Amino acid sequence: MEKIRRNERMSAMMKILTAEPNKIFTLSYFCDLFGAAKSTMSEDIDLLREVVNQFGLGELVTVTGAAGGVRYRTKVKRPAARQFVGDLCQKLSGPGRVLPGGFLYSSDVLADPEVVSRMGEIIATEYYAAQPDFVLTMETKGIPVAYATAHALGVPLVIARRASKAYEGSEININYVTGSGSIGTMSLSRRAVKEGSRCLIVDDFLKGGGTAKGMVDLMREFGVDVVGSAFVMSTAKPLRKRITGEKSLMVLEMDTETETALVKPAFWLHGDA
Amino acid sequence: MEKIRRNERMSAMMKILTAEPNKIFTLSYFCDLFGAAKSTMSEDIDLLREVVNQFGLGELVTVTGAAGGVRYRTKVKRPAARQFVGDLCQKLSGPGRVLPGGFLYSSDVLADPEVVSRMGEIIATEYYAAQPDFVLTMETKGIPVAYATAHALGVPLVIARRASKAYEGSEININYVTGSGSIGTMSLSRRAVKEGSRCLIVDDFLKGGGTAKGMVDLMREFGVDVVGSAFVMSTAKPLRKRITGEKSLMVLEMDTETETALVKPAFWLHGDA
Repeated sequence: MEKIRRNERMSAMMKILTAEPNKIFTLSYFCDLFGAAKSTMSEDIDLLREVVNQFGLGELVTVTGAAGGVRYRTKVKRPAARQFVGDLCQKLSGPGRVLPGGFLYSSDVLADPEVVSRMGEIIATEYYAAQPDFVLTMETKGIPVAYATAHALGVPLVIARRASKAYEGSEININYVTGSGSIGTMSLSRRAVKEGSRCLIVDDFLKGGGTAKGMVDLMREFGVDVVGSAFVMSTAKPLRKRITGEKSLMVLEMDTETETALVKPAFWLHGDA
Repeated sequence: MEKIRRNERMSAMMKILTAEPNKIFTLSYFCDLFGAAKSTMSEDIDLLREVVNQFGLGELVTVTGAAGGVRYRTKVKRPAARQFVGDLCQKLSGPGRVLPGGFLYSSDVLADPEVVSRMGEIIATEYYAAQPDFVLTMETKGIPVAYATAHALGVPLVIARRASKAYEGSEININYVTGSGSIGTMSLSRRAVKEGSRCLIVDDFLKGGGTAKGMVDLMREFGVDVVGSAFVMSTAKPLRKRITGEKSLMVLEMDTETETALVKPAFWLHGDA
């Protein structure tokens, strides 16, 4: 094999590591790929770590031990997250977004990969430490951001369904109170998650928290720990939700009389972390 | 600013370009970011193009003209795509996946980011040339792969809903024949897509093609061109679908008597391209 230069190794490694966040790649993997010695690879990784830091592209972590290696995490720093969410709030507070009935049109934002992947990175940044084994969402609109979060965390996505689907096999169903006050049924295949695993709930919208509470209850039926819950947007009212400890990116204040929406970055984004 | 070395510039550029496939970054953008001359950046990009080629990581394309610059595309070569899909077929043909009723359990595969992002890259590779303006899918199970495809193509995702949702505003509804032969209603907000734009349909499963045909009809109502359709899996029977020209990654032959499933890579993956 022709000798591969450092800039080539580093660039290729960057692509490979960042394409699968939170996955541990062994040093041997890269040694084999580039035909390079471990000491050389260690130097490359040290340099790469600095690049990632310098340009605010995330974080490279070296993991020691038998299953050791190097992994990339999409660590979005607080000021960058605040800036991004602030811009998004401005977009969502703009004219023409309030729909008849006092709803906010957000489907475009929730399915724009550039926006969604960044939201996933911001949410993942908050929950790496909690080490979820999977991300749970309830169909439909939260699926892209839940997927992006799962991708950034390097874990599977699990989608709860609104009604039982015969083609999912044996399922557990649970009733919950929907945003409009009616009773909904939430359904998940028994084989979708393992007992004793750890779950992060991600969804697009939190109002009263009925659906979120349903997901928490559903996970209890599966014997799964809920380690956190994150939402793209929550409403300012009611202040008290049916769940606690959640993190939302944005807070919505809807004035139904004047049909204007004010969307603000959530308070926690103003902290330093 | 401290002088940034070539290996640092190239690594950072790789991350930035590959994080947003198909987006054109101007040379000036990188010149400003790194405090480097255009000639230097051109050299960096030439080297980066070789790296991407050599390690099968996709494709870097230089775009000339007023809106020119450089963009990354996730070009998956045919043999690599075949290998990946072949492994997936083996997994899906394994024991214990056929559910009562002769359905195949695939929800885990359809929501595993490592699998889904690769499927999105493979589908995007086939449709860059068709220049879709957005990806359309029908809720629910196809959303992750449709999102991954949209991300790879650098275009928005649009999700058609099963029933009209009051909070999406003014909508267009269309009736379609579901897989079980009943009539379903498909719904999309009027503001979700622009007349005259180009659509790529992506979904998880193609059997008779009723849902896919519904999406095609829906797009006609919006005055949108359907430039292609791609599916994770299609059934061998019926051979004749309600739509034509589609590409599936896998073909499913289900023996309902013995309750065994045989999943094969689609024929087109065996070609050279």
